[in-house]
Amino acid sequence: MSANLILLRHGESEWNALNLFTGWVDVDINEKGVGEAKRGGELLTGAGLLPDVLHTSVLRRAIHTANLALENCDRHWIPVRRHWRLNERHYGDLQGKNKAETLEQYGEEKFMLWRRSYDTPPPPIADDNPNTQFDDPRYAFLPPEARPKTECLKDVVVRMLPYWYDAIVPDLRGGNTVLVTAHGNSLRALVKHLDDISDADIAGLNIPTGIPLHYELDDDLKPVKAGGTYLDPDAAAAAIEAVKNQGKK
Amino acid sequence: MSANLILLRHGESEWNALNLFTGWVDVDINEKGVGEAKRGGELLTGAGLLPDVLHTSVLRRAIHTANLALENCDRHWIPVRRHWRLNERHYGDLQGKNKAETLEQYGEEKFMLWRRSYDTPPPPIADDNPNTQFDDPRYAFLPPEARPKTECLKDVVVRMLPYWYDAIVPDLRGGNTVLVTAHGNSLRALVKHLDDISDADIAGLNIPTGIPLHYELDDDLKPVKAGGTYLDPDAAAAAIEAVKNQGKK
Repeated sequence: MSANLILLRHGESEWNALNLFTGWVDVDINEKGVGEAKRGGELLTGAGLLPDVLHTSVLRRAIHTANLALENCDRHWIPVRRHWRLNERHYGDLQGKNKAETLEQYGEEKFMLWRRSYDTPPPPIADDNPNTQFDDPRYAFLPPEARPKTECLKDVVVRMLPYWYDAIVPDLRGGNTVLVTAHGNSLRALVKHLDDISDADIAGLNIPTGIPLHYELDDDLKPVKAGGTYLDPDAAAAAIEAVKNQGKK
Repeated sequence: MSANLILLRHGESEWNALNLFTGWVDVDINEKGVGEAKRGGELLTGAGLLPDVLHTSVLRRAIHTANLALENCDRHWIPVRRHWRLNERHYGDLQGKNKAETLEQYGEEKFMLWRRSYDTPPPPIADDNPNTQFDDPRYAFLPPEARPKTECLKDVVVRMLPYWYDAIVPDLRGGNTVLVTAHGNSLRALVKHLDDISDADIAGLNIPTGIPLHYELDDDLKPVKAGGTYLDPDAAAAAIEAVKNQGKK
C-alpha cells in the first residue's frame, strides 16, 4: 500500500524578507507568507490531496502556515502534532544577524560553509545574543544538553529522524495522508533521507516556500518518484532559482 | 494540588450575527469574533493563565478562535487535541433556520422548549435539510448510530462527559493549565457538571463569547469557587444579559 506525504515549507517570514538568519527565533510569516500559505491550501484542494493528519514544528511561522493552509482546504479539524525536532536548523550565533553583513564580515568561504556545508555548524550562540531561546517555556522540559546551541544540517538530520520514525511513519503506515509543515532545513534533512541524497549533493537542494511537495511512498517508504512532485511545478522552479541568490543581496 | 481549567466560547460567528441556528454547521467566526478571540488571548496573558494544552471541538469557529487566542498569548506551540464530543449541540432540523422565523412558526412555548429545556430535543434533522453533516469526512469514522441527528442539552452532557474524563481530566491531573475552546452548549454541559447545577437551573445559564472563564479545581476536580471567574467580569455580565435577549429580535 502506497502512502502520501506532503511537505510544506512555511510562507515568507518577517525575517526572510529582512534577510536575517532566523533559526529558532520565533518570527511570524509576513503578508506575502500569509498569501503563500492560503495558496498552499488551494493547491492541496486542487490536487485532491487532503491531509488526514498534520505534523508541525513548534515555531510560529510553520504553525501559522499550517493553520491557514488547512483552513483553506477545509481540513482545519484534523489531528495535529507539534515537535521541536521539526524546527528549523539552529543557526547558532548567526541568529538575528543580517545575511549580507555576515557575508561581508566573515567572507564568502566561511559564509557558504556555514550556510551550505553538511557538517560545519556556525559558532554556538553566545549567552548574550538576544536571540537565544534559553528561557523559552516551550523547551523548558528539555535538559540543557539536549538543546542545540548551533546546528549543521547533519545535526538536523540526527535530531529530526527519530521524529520521522516514531511519529510520522506510524501515521503513514496507518494509511493517512500526512502533511508536514516545517522549515527549509528540517525539510531538506527529510528529503535527503527520503531521496538518499549524498552529503555533497544536498548543498544544491533548495525547497521553495508555500508550495506543497508531494511524495508517494512505496511499502518501504521510499519515493515512487525521486524528488517528489511540487503541486505547482513552474512556481517551484522559479522560487528555487530565487532562493539560490539569497544572501547575495 | 489544584488544577487550572479555562473555558472559552468561540467568538461571534457568521450565523450568530444572522440569528440562525448553527449546531454542527461549520461556519467561521466573523470580524467581531476575530477581535473577541484575539482579546481572549490578551486576557489570558493579563491574568498570567497561560495554557499548557488545548482541547477544541472539530468545528471551525472554535478552532479559529483557539488559534487566534493562542497566537495572541504566545502559546501557539502547545499541544492540541480536537474532538467532536466538544462540538456544539446538534440542533436537529432547526440547523440553518432563522431563530426569529422559527419562533414565529412554532410559537414561543415550543421555541423555548427546544432552546432551553434540558431534555427535549428539536425534531431530528431531515435527510433533505441542506445543513446535515452526513457526508462530512470528519465524522466518517463514526458509525451512523453514533452520529446525532438532534440533541437536547442532556444528550450533550452524555456525549461530552466521556471526553472530559478520558482526555481533559488526565491533562489536569498532569498539572497542566488546560484551555477548552468550544461552544455555548458544550460548555454549558461542562459547567453544569462542574458546578453541579440542577436540570432546571441550567436553563438560566449563559456563557458569553470570547471571555475566558477560569476554574480553579480542587483535588476532586470540584470548583474552588462556584461558577469560576471570568477574566473580564464586567464584559461577561453585559454579554450574558445580551444573550438572554437572543431570538427575540
